[in-house]
Amino acid sequence: MITLHHLVHSRSFRILWLLEELKDAYGLDYTLVSHARGENLLAPPVLLDIHPMGKAPILIDTALGDTDNALAESALIIEYLLVTYDSDGKFHPTDTGSQAWRAYTFWLHFAEGSLMPPLVTQLILSTSAKKAPFFLRPIIKALSNKINALILSGNVKKSLALLASALESQHWLTGDHLTGADIQLYFAALAADKRAGLSDEHAPIINWMRRCESRPAFMRALALGGAPLS
Amino acid sequence: MITLHHLVHSRSFRILWLLEELKDAYGLDYTLVSHARGENLLAPPVLLDIHPMGKAPILIDTALGDTDNALAESALIIEYLLVTYDSDGKFHPTDTGSQAWRAYTFWLHFAEGSLMPPLVTQLILSTSAKKAPFFLRPIIKALSNKINALILSGNVKKSLALLASALESQHWLTGDHLTGADIQLYFAALAADKRAGLSDEHAPIINWMRRCESRPAFMRALALGGAPLS
Repeated sequence: MITLHHLVHSRSFRILWLLEELKDAYGLDYTLVSHARGENLLAPPVLLDIHPMGKAPILIDTALGDTDNALAESALIIEYLLVTYDSDGKFHPTDTGSQAWRAYTFWLHFAEGSLMPPLVTQLILSTSAKKAPFFLRPIIKALSNKINALILSGNVKKSLALLASALESQHWLTGDHLTGADIQLYFAALAADKRAGLSDEHAPIINWMRRCESRPAFMRALALGGAPLS
Repeated sequence: MITLHHLVHSRSFRILWLLEELKDAYGLDYTLVSHARGENLLAPPVLLDIHPMGKAPILIDTALGDTDNALAESALIIEYLLVTYDSDGKFHPTDTGSQAWRAYTFWLHFAEGSLMPPLVTQLILSTSAKKAPFFLRPIIKALSNKINALILSGNVKKSLALLASALESQHWLTGDHLTGADIQLYFAALAADKRAGLSDEHAPIINWMRRCESRPAFMRALALGGAPLS
């Protein structure tokens, strides 16, 4: 029995979407438990009782036994679900070491390792500027702009250029069908669009996002769990 | 022919260490190209000619052909080297889906997905405070303290508690021998020690770091590539 602990408006949307894809492809069943963010916008403390990291997504699979069956970290959950339940390799390359496997593994790590961190730092800085006493706002805004110019924007720009170039000649990140890597990266691309703003040069990314969003499993995940970002 | 483009005092130390482990275990040969940081402490522009992300590590393996043979993203490089050259499974679990495989995959993603991002944000904020005009320093320091208290420290604390608990009953992250996951996480633990300061409650982490550092391959990597952090 599979249970997903989902946090509304968060990265755990990805796991919900993947579970809906696995339902379509294999009839895999699961239970959804949705959690709202606290007033401070952080994950609610109840998640700490389920996994010591206290954040969503958490996937519980009783097939792993009665204890130690709670998995955290989106990319591990994606990899676990696929090696365990995607027996036909519909959503992951099964030829380890191949070009498709390298692309799949690269993008899985790239999403949280390269693209997301500067976006989260940007979000933290811009939120701090908004919440600061009004007479400090210009200073924090200036600091935030400087950090963006020196470090963050350049990295985000290079990441998005790489992503756009990968999607120029193919519909999905590893070739001609959707894999767990597309699902993992979709959220980071959405965050990049919200923070940095995608433009004409990113058309391949925007078109790929529309392909993601038009999948029936994506649309059901949206109806069940709410928008990935608030 | 394998070539590692290494940036001194950076995450690419991990790949250098792994290549030295593979040399000990299998006699694998490689060429090291070391790059110094620019005056702004960022990676030098020459790396952009080798891979569009322009950061180290970059691994080139001519076994992949004459073009498209440059790999970026530490965790992908670790996974690639191990599935390709660790034929006896000395440094990675080969039983996909098993408990050891889940631990290995979890820690590989956890290092850059959970532990590193708040540490890098802390570093960016503290560096900004130091470089700001003196009359702004108290304001930026106060902002940085507030962001730490509200968001960053809690996450780092939970990550370190999880890591300490995993290393309480075993010598290495996936059991009784070193894997690529230990190598990937060592750097993040070192950064955490430098930023947040490890204390008595983290004794299992400190002991594990000493085990890492006493390996001959680690010591040769240190002599060849310099300290992981400046």
